[in-house]
Amino acid sequence: MRRPTIMDIAKAAGVSKGAVSYALNGRPGVSEGTRKRILDIASDLGWAPSNPARALAAGGRVGAVGLVVDRPSRSLGIEPFFMQLVSGIETELSATGVDLLLQVTEDTDTELAVYRRWASERRVDGVVMVDLRVDDPRPAAVRGLGLPAVLLGGPGGAGDLPCLYTDDSSSVREVVRYLAALGHRHVVQVSGPEEFAHTVDRGEAFREAADRAGLAGAYSVHSDYTGEAGARTTRRLLAAAERPTALVYDNDLMAVAGLGVAAEMGVDVPSQLSIVAWDDSALCRLVRPSLTAIGRDVVGHGRQVARMLGRVLEGEPVASQESSAGELHPRGSTGPLVVSHVSAVTSE
Amino acid sequence: MRRPTIMDIAKAAGVSKGAVSYALNGRPGVSEGTRKRILDIASDLGWAPSNPARALAAGGRVGAVGLVVDRPSRSLGIEPFFMQLVSGIETELSATGVDLLLQVTEDTDTELAVYRRWASERRVDGVVMVDLRVDDPRPAAVRGLGLPAVLLGGPGGAGDLPCLYTDDSSSVREVVRYLAALGHRHVVQVSGPEEFAHTVDRGEAFREAADRAGLAGAYSVHSDYTGEAGARTTRRLLAAAERPTALVYDNDLMAVAGLGVAAEMGVDVPSQLSIVAWDDSALCRLVRPSLTAIGRDVVGHGRQVARMLGRVLEGEPVASQESSAGELHPRGSTGPLVVSHVSAVTSE
Repeated sequence: MRRPTIMDIAKAAGVSKGAVSYALNGRPGVSEGTRKRILDIASDLGWAPSNPARALAAGGRVGAVGLVVDRPSRSLGIEPFFMQLVSGIETELSATGVDLLLQVTEDTDTELAVYRRWASERRVDGVVMVDLRVDDPRPAAVRGLGLPAVLLGGPGGAGDLPCLYTDDSSSVREVVRYLAALGHRHVVQVSGPEEFAHTVDRGEAFREAADRAGLAGAYSVHSDYTGEAGARTTRRLLAAAERPTALVYDNDLMAVAGLGVAAEMGVDVPSQLSIVAWDDSALCRLVRPSLTAIGRDVVGHGRQVARMLGRVLEGEPVASQESSAGELHPRGSTGPLVVSHVSAVTSE
Repeated sequence: MRRPTIMDIAKAAGVSKGAVSYALNGRPGVSEGTRKRILDIASDLGWAPSNPARALAAGGRVGAVGLVVDRPSRSLGIEPFFMQLVSGIETELSATGVDLLLQVTEDTDTELAVYRRWASERRVDGVVMVDLRVDDPRPAAVRGLGLPAVLLGGPGGAGDLPCLYTDDSSSVREVVRYLAALGHRHVVQVSGPEEFAHTVDRGEAFREAADRAGLAGAYSVHSDYTGEAGARTTRRLLAAAERPTALVYDNDLMAVAGLGVAAEMGVDVPSQLSIVAWDDSALCRLVRPSLTAIGRDVVGHGRQVARMLGRVLEGEPVASQESSAGELHPRGSTGPLVVSHVSAVTSE
């Protein structure tokens, strides 16, 4: 006897396939009466759900996916990136009744310990990894644990993990050319921690693009993504004898902090200082002047890595994919260098 | 034969209890060689871990706690509150190897469906609930499902659920008295969605305090916590014939948006407009002028509800607890009403 399908149940109950799906998955969309009737018919037909718990009992899937976020909790709370990523992953998972296990850790060793525990206790079917580091031990570790994984980042340094990656260097080049065209020569990149692979990539792209545009006064400084550190770094840069005329931040939070410090120090944005943020969250649009930013579809990236992981878990071969590069959204925080300030800056 | 303890293993291995704990829990802090030796000795002594997976196999705990966040994902991404709460819950759970299952939903029906699924599939041992609504069906629903739960909010409307609650009304009174003392009469509260119980509580407290302070021009308007809606609401208020001289926002994000709109409309903060934010996140300190805010220890609240839930799961009687009320942190966004503007505003 063949296994009854959702269509069989729908026919027997005289409802749509969608209604059957809502009823069987315990989701809203059907009345409680209809739900009960559909469940009774499904039971009569001998329908066996292939839901995660049953699968687990049958030695199949657990029905959960893990995400470890390895950032100091003080920056996590206000950096939009992670909640947007989580939202995107969730959107995809919740449609299939798969849960997201979230862990917040403070270092890579603890993150690796979480993966060991998840693997040994069969907590998750697979994991989404983010923030690839230079010489990152995690790709080899999850492989060793037999833990399916997809990486948001890479592909360099990711071993044979399927990656969803972005060509950050083309966005960096676009920003540098734009600032150079506005007349800026003294452009400083305020980047993230140097252990992240994408920090290294963006830094190299920045130096190359600055060289090509002939920006002799361009350089990079490392910060740590928090607003506090972004503010400190900006204060130091604006207090220097050779004050930069444009700052390119590696995340939105540091850029907002930088804008605040400029106001605090009486440096007008954009007539005396242009500011560009990486990651165009709503934060960039809420502050005044609104921030010119490189926009990526973080929610969309979350959905896409979740789908890639889903296919990995189905046993399909999954190749790394390049997502579209971030786009520059020019707003009020960037503008032409005003000449009266050029003299002060370039007279060294 | 008595069950061997961690101390027995520590003695046999010649290491500290802490090292044994690290090794048994798969956490960093011991070398891989030491870990292996400790695990071997533990095995020789017949030590049985009481970890979640074993407990599950034995019909005990699952070792996971659930949190459903029922907010539009567009506001979730940038509102610091939830990630801070998650950080706090996580800090407490990760110390005991308990996982956090996170789901983002868009309405209460879907949230209830998640609880039904979690209960039927035994996904979690219990849940932390937030954002109590007026006539909230969730306390009765989790009770009906036999799902242990602790609520951040209440205690009114929470049934017999243990609550961690705050007396928001005392914070509201403090803000209103402070603004009245600065000379403000036309104070508007920009509150959250009216279906939330804490919105209702704060609204009532605001009206009472405003009456007591004799602020005839005080009233409340509802918004939805997003920056976009906060900006729209602020634009409408500042364009009104009777322009308010002080705005009290129900979250930090709307306050940041309001500050941006004031700048956009040429309304100086604080000489023409004072702004107060609820929830003193780092966002409030990054913008200029920095925002006067009511600060709560959201991370601490997360830790405390997680501990309360842990005790519920241990079968202990857990009473509702009142956490300390939010404190007012005055910063640059509030100041005395400048007289030249009073005339313009009160001449109607």
